[in-house]
Amino acid sequence: MAQNPLDQLIQRLSRLPGLGPRSARRTALYLLKNREQVMLPLANQLDHAARKVRTCLDCGNLDLSDLCTICQDSRRDSQRICVVEDVSDLWAIERAGIYSGLYHILGGTLSALEGRGPRELGIDRLVQRASHIAENQSDRQFETIEPLSIDRLSEQMSEIILATSATVDGQTTAHYIAERLEHLPVQVTRLAHGVPVGGELNYLDDGTLAQAMKARSRL
Amino acid sequence: MAQNPLDQLIQRLSRLPGLGPRSARRTALYLLKNREQVMLPLANQLDHAARKVRTCLDCGNLDLSDLCTICQDSRRDSQRICVVEDVSDLWAIERAGIYSGLYHILGGTLSALEGRGPRELGIDRLVQRASHIAENQSDRQFETIEPLSIDRLSEQMSEIILATSATVDGQTTAHYIAERLEHLPVQVTRLAHGVPVGGELNYLDDGTLAQAMKARSRL
Repeated sequence: MAQNPLDQLIQRLSRLPGLGPRSARRTALYLLKNREQVMLPLANQLDHAARKVRTCLDCGNLDLSDLCTICQDSRRDSQRICVVEDVSDLWAIERAGIYSGLYHILGGTLSALEGRGPRELGIDRLVQRASHIAENQSDRQFETIEPLSIDRLSEQMSEIILATSATVDGQTTAHYIAERLEHLPVQVTRLAHGVPVGGELNYLDDGTLAQAMKARSRL
Repeated sequence: MAQNPLDQLIQRLSRLPGLGPRSARRTALYLLKNREQVMLPLANQLDHAARKVRTCLDCGNLDLSDLCTICQDSRRDSQRICVVEDVSDLWAIERAGIYSGLYHILGGTLSALEGRGPRELGIDRLVQRASHIAENQSDRQFETIEPLSIDRLSEQMSEIILATSATVDGQTTAHYIAERLEHLPVQVTRLAHGVPVGGELNYLDDGTLAQAMKARSRL
């Protein structure tokens, strides 16, 4: 406790992800050289954000109110929920600008080892939201659309997109969620697997290549 | 100004050295997930260090008082000053534990482009300190030791070690300082150049290899 505040700062910085002791020292020096412009504002900002930023009660997104901007936005398609592992995945999808529905943030994957079960991932809440949008949909349009079909996506139907990572844990979690949603009249979909745009075939792993070949489409 | 504090935090973090936008986002998420244990303490620590840490008036080191621990330590050899570019260089030498003298921190190299002249590097102060230790030495021991010799280091004589980087800027700065100290009865030395310990010859640049060959010593 009688330790130098400089050493303490370096120690704290070195525990951040991606910063080792060496870059922590560099960062500490940089900060001390720019106290007024960088260091004190950063301290303020950290304190401010830690106190202000909240977790959306509906989807788990980080925002300033109990309901996040996305959940509050009436222009977004409330019949679609995209299930992602982490807030950073939501940010990535939002940056791509190709999705206008809502989200559900799991906060990780199912993991007995790390003590994350369905409760920790808020899967009950997701099922609840899914049954809610399924009800709304049946009120509105159930007579006008064709019966549930897995092969063909219906633009009119409610949809849960499972956008977990293409890792074993991510896919296990997705399968578990799909099972839990089985009884509901919603489409459950997953992201396509394939060659990344700009990716070279000879650097691609066999699994991806196999998936890309299987799911090939007509030009 | 009406920007989200989360975005502001990410922006601030991404300006730190070594953190791009992607790692800034990752860090922000990590911090927000560990508010009580990591984020608020870090904010506090930053604020605390920014207000407490000072620059030593004698050597330029960062510490808690106007005279740093090293300058205050009476067990250190006050007849030796090691000139380094930055506080991180001082830390590196202290970690190696092979030097017990004092320091002078330049805070960079001479650079007309970046507006760093002798004044910014505190070279007048260094010359003053050097002449001070030269005086003390002449009082104490000038009669007992042999005349100034460049080839042979005298353990009894005052010494200024120029430990600037082995870059063009670092060496230019070292030469400038050596000239400014010429008139004083102190030994001016520089670090040895050579093969780094653990370094492989075939990965070494020609300059280093040439220096190492020239300065070879008897086994």
